[in-house]
Amino acid sequence: MHRTYSLRNSRAPTAAQLASPPPPTSSTKSGRFFGNGSIVHSFRRSAAGSMGPDLARKLAQLVKMEKNVMRSIEQQARERREVAKQLSLWGEDADEDVSDVTDKLGVLIYEIGELEDQFIDKYDQYRITLKSVRNIEASVQPSRDRKQKITDQIAHLKYKEPNSPKIIVLEQELVRAEAESLVAEAQLSNITREKVKAAFNYQFDAIREHSEKLALIAGYGKALLELLDDTPVTPGESRPAYDGYEASKQVIIDAENALASWTLDQASVKPTLSIRRADVDDYDDEEEEGAEWAEDEPSAVVEEGKVLDA
Amino acid sequence: MHRTYSLRNSRAPTAAQLASPPPPTSSTKSGRFFGNGSIVHSFRRSAAGSMGPDLARKLAQLVKMEKNVMRSIEQQARERREVAKQLSLWGEDADEDVSDVTDKLGVLIYEIGELEDQFIDKYDQYRITLKSVRNIEASVQPSRDRKQKITDQIAHLKYKEPNSPKIIVLEQELVRAEAESLVAEAQLSNITREKVKAAFNYQFDAIREHSEKLALIAGYGKALLELLDDTPVTPGESRPAYDGYEASKQVIIDAENALASWTLDQASVKPTLSIRRADVDDYDDEEEEGAEWAEDEPSAVVEEGKVLDA
Repeated sequence: MHRTYSLRNSRAPTAAQLASPPPPTSSTKSGRFFGNGSIVHSFRRSAAGSMGPDLARKLAQLVKMEKNVMRSIEQQARERREVAKQLSLWGEDADEDVSDVTDKLGVLIYEIGELEDQFIDKYDQYRITLKSVRNIEASVQPSRDRKQKITDQIAHLKYKEPNSPKIIVLEQELVRAEAESLVAEAQLSNITREKVKAAFNYQFDAIREHSEKLALIAGYGKALLELLDDTPVTPGESRPAYDGYEASKQVIIDAENALASWTLDQASVKPTLSIRRADVDDYDDEEEEGAEWAEDEPSAVVEEGKVLDA
Repeated sequence: MHRTYSLRNSRAPTAAQLASPPPPTSSTKSGRFFGNGSIVHSFRRSAAGSMGPDLARKLAQLVKMEKNVMRSIEQQARERREVAKQLSLWGEDADEDVSDVTDKLGVLIYEIGELEDQFIDKYDQYRITLKSVRNIEASVQPSRDRKQKITDQIAHLKYKEPNSPKIIVLEQELVRAEAESLVAEAQLSNITREKVKAAFNYQFDAIREHSEKLALIAGYGKALLELLDDTPVTPGESRPAYDGYEASKQVIIDAENALASWTLDQASVKPTLSIRRADVDDYDDEEEEGAEWAEDEPSAVVEEGKVLDA
């Protein structure tokens, strides 16, 4: 990760990097002209920046770039499903155990593709929420422009015709424009925070769900591999008959149930934070209750342990 | 997931599907001629099938298709990093809290891109291991062909010149070819199992690592969002000064440490299997030892709990 803790500063090379410069990037990772859609994607990105109000330009570009990310995931989901089918197809001619296990692995990998598709839909929610920030940014721009324009007109008049009665009219107009602008800026401030928070909460919840489900699938995949009989046979020796059909089917059923019943509350990957956020006073009561619960849990386990030991 | 538990059977539509047919797929998901590289990808796939020995054809195709998957992930990783930079860039002009939080979110999202790159390298290990299965398949083909050819020659001679002395020579040759073939088939059987197991263990371990790390990042991302002050302000009111710089930096440091110290042993997403594999006799001893350890752990926690309670 970035030792500077910011994307804005460029990193100075570390001592290790100076001692042994990194190798050139692999040829597959260089830009391709055809292939991975870089033309369309970069066009979409740069076109977004060239229109619309100044204030909303960067965010508009971000929203377009997120569309590119979504398309890449879509592509990957499609290819994942094709790979799954091909794996199953390949295994079909093999011995019974290889045939059954590859077919079931295919089912799991196909499911990864399906989950990727579901992830895209959730990622889109994030993107759409970002759009509403872009929209408020775009709508605040005219009120800023208007205020600026009146201020300029007053300065111009004061220089050219210091006694013009128009100045008073303009100054009254400026007061109104400033009032409008105050409201607009407060809206921008409130909506930006609310929506950025909501958008990234969507994204991170989607990532958590997607990741934990993928990790589950990988676990079930490893269980399937156990059914492959890889004890070496000598030439002419035949393998014992395969009897894993029930077991492999059960792994798939288990996987299906685990995925279907997964909820965010069950998420098992938890970050460990070294700073206790004491400044979040509003949530303190809830947090303490939660902490009590968390502390109760182990002692419940303790009770069970005692019963088992007794 | 597939209710038929196999990718080979086509699914009959369910009652629910018959009652309400699914909507047409979204326009973004249809095949694109330009854009997501479908031409290059499908060319690579179909070219692979048209060469090489019959036996290895399907697997050769799978290996190429996996290359496509890798390229899609690469593309995604690249775009993820661009999105991260753009997010940080957008936030730069905003208020202090929004600016700091979006910059740090950018760091986390950039890291997702980096992890995706690392995942590709591991995925490539899987693909390379599959290649060795393809190679053994390809090398077994000639011995099968030779046996078949001799068998055909003998049948032909027996029909045309039943008393030809060449028949005996060919029959001796067939015995040798069969011996060679027995060895080749045993090699195929052993290597296929060994390598398929190794390959998918690579893949699933890579998926577990990648997923759990992403889930961690999402968790830290949510912690960052807490630093955004989203209590609404009224027009003209100014927000309290932002004092989250230390906290946000600490979140990044925590995330960095959590990612750096993550190992497969710590994986927290565990599949629950309803079938106990009693047939894996070889591992029984180890497994029981493992189970004992696992049972010891909670009681160790118990001890600690007692100390804390006392």
